[in-house]
Amino acid sequence: MKKDLPMNRAERAQMAMMLEVSAYPKPGNVDRCHDYPDTRLEHFLASTILVRPVFDAAEKTDGRVGGLIREAVMLTNGHSGGNTHFGALILLIPLILGGDIEGAQAVAAATDVEDAVDFYAAFGLTSVRVVENDDLDVNDPASVTAIREQGLTLADIMAYSAPRDMVAREWTNGFALTRRCADLLHAHGCGRESIVATFLDLLATEPDTFIAKKHGEAVAEQTMRAAAEVLGGRRDLAIFDAECVSAGINPGSIADIIIAGIYVALGEGWQWDC
Amino acid sequence: MKKDLPMNRAERAQMAMMLEVSAYPKPGNVDRCHDYPDTRLEHFLASTILVRPVFDAAEKTDGRVGGLIREAVMLTNGHSGGNTHFGALILLIPLILGGDIEGAQAVAAATDVEDAVDFYAAFGLTSVRVVENDDLDVNDPASVTAIREQGLTLADIMAYSAPRDMVAREWTNGFALTRRCADLLHAHGCGRESIVATFLDLLATEPDTFIAKKHGEAVAEQTMRAAAEVLGGRRDLAIFDAECVSAGINPGSIADIIIAGIYVALGEGWQWDC
Repeated sequence: MKKDLPMNRAERAQMAMMLEVSAYPKPGNVDRCHDYPDTRLEHFLASTILVRPVFDAAEKTDGRVGGLIREAVMLTNGHSGGNTHFGALILLIPLILGGDIEGAQAVAAATDVEDAVDFYAAFGLTSVRVVENDDLDVNDPASVTAIREQGLTLADIMAYSAPRDMVAREWTNGFALTRRCADLLHAHGCGRESIVATFLDLLATEPDTFIAKKHGEAVAEQTMRAAAEVLGGRRDLAIFDAECVSAGINPGSIADIIIAGIYVALGEGWQWDC
Repeated sequence: MKKDLPMNRAERAQMAMMLEVSAYPKPGNVDRCHDYPDTRLEHFLASTILVRPVFDAAEKTDGRVGGLIREAVMLTNGHSGGNTHFGALILLIPLILGGDIEGAQAVAAATDVEDAVDFYAAFGLTSVRVVENDDLDVNDPASVTAIREQGLTLADIMAYSAPRDMVAREWTNGFALTRRCADLLHAHGCGRESIVATFLDLLATEPDTFIAKKHGEAVAEQTMRAAAEVLGGRRDLAIFDAECVSAGINPGSIADIIIAGIYVALGEGWQWDC
């Protein structure tokens, strides 16, 4: 194996996005060998390429976290594949701004009302699922007024969403799953196989909140138990994958956390190329 | 279908690299569903990401064509996948510098001895096959002396290689196959299917010089005839693909030209996303 050239933060973030979508088999998600009808491998890879200017800006601390998330969503939302990386960007932008998890926590702690307003503008660009009867409905202009009146920061918004959204929860718990994902990547060795093994480990122990919003919590729990059966050798991975795909059960939030974990692991010397 | 956001030249070049490798089935080459043991999808996509700074420099005309090719090879040569895009970079760098085929021809015509020397340095970084007993052996330091003594430009070097190398030939014939590839992409519609159809059209009519250098001209001619049989419905595409992969017959030079053709077609409004 050749020694990889050193990568800057923006490149590590892009590589994380590319490696996550290229890894397979990943039950239920778009990967090398699976597309969804409206979202294909090329959409994920196009987003990975086209987001670069925002990652470069984040690396130079040229912008604030809310505005950068909004710009990143704009750059990655121009194709027909819809929202490919909204959750991943919510994690990657503070990680690039801050460098690592400790820095990202400082970025999260320093957010203000403008970050929250920009984030809501980003949210409005996506078709991300929102829980009904939400007080802070992103499609409701009154939400922005409420944010300003209550003086909510972006960290407050994340804390508000945390119980139902494992990506938002990362902002409130020191990026705990991102840290665990990076540790698992190190423990599982290197390259594609370690990404797949890490994905299954997380899927078998954490109910995916994207699945929960789309199909209900019971389905998220069932998917978690099924992944544990795959790990225990009591269920076939390929069959589980096919079942997830045909039912539209895609663990999108765990995929977002995998991307953040790969970014962190790459910064700690984990090898993608082995 | 959403309207794509406008892309700059560097992004079009990266998108072309990504779309080529993602398209499938492409007989013999790395694609979504095929790796070679030492060169995998991730290597091609890593090169696509990591080459960006050189493409940005080329877009700003910040550098000369020989030096930019050398820098691009350095950035894309840091992983264990070896040379993924040498031929494609030989076409993309003048296309980015010049904007389109007409501009690339002007770039080629204006090359000098330093471009040739830089190009030989780039060549030396790769493991690209060289015809034996070549007067301008890239591993022979005397070659650089000969280039300087004879006052050879990079265009002269390409003309020297053109009879045996269809990528070099593009520099000498007005990027004729690149142009034909872009025309075929337009004619075949849009997206992944048009890339695959264009690939088969070129493979069925042009002996691939990468195959010829690796396996001899007879194998390149056989592969061309087999592709024509696929197009004529007399041979199964999936079986042909499997035969090529198992024999290590990969039409790498046609893949390079496809990338250049996608770059040109994207600049002319061809839609990758449909």
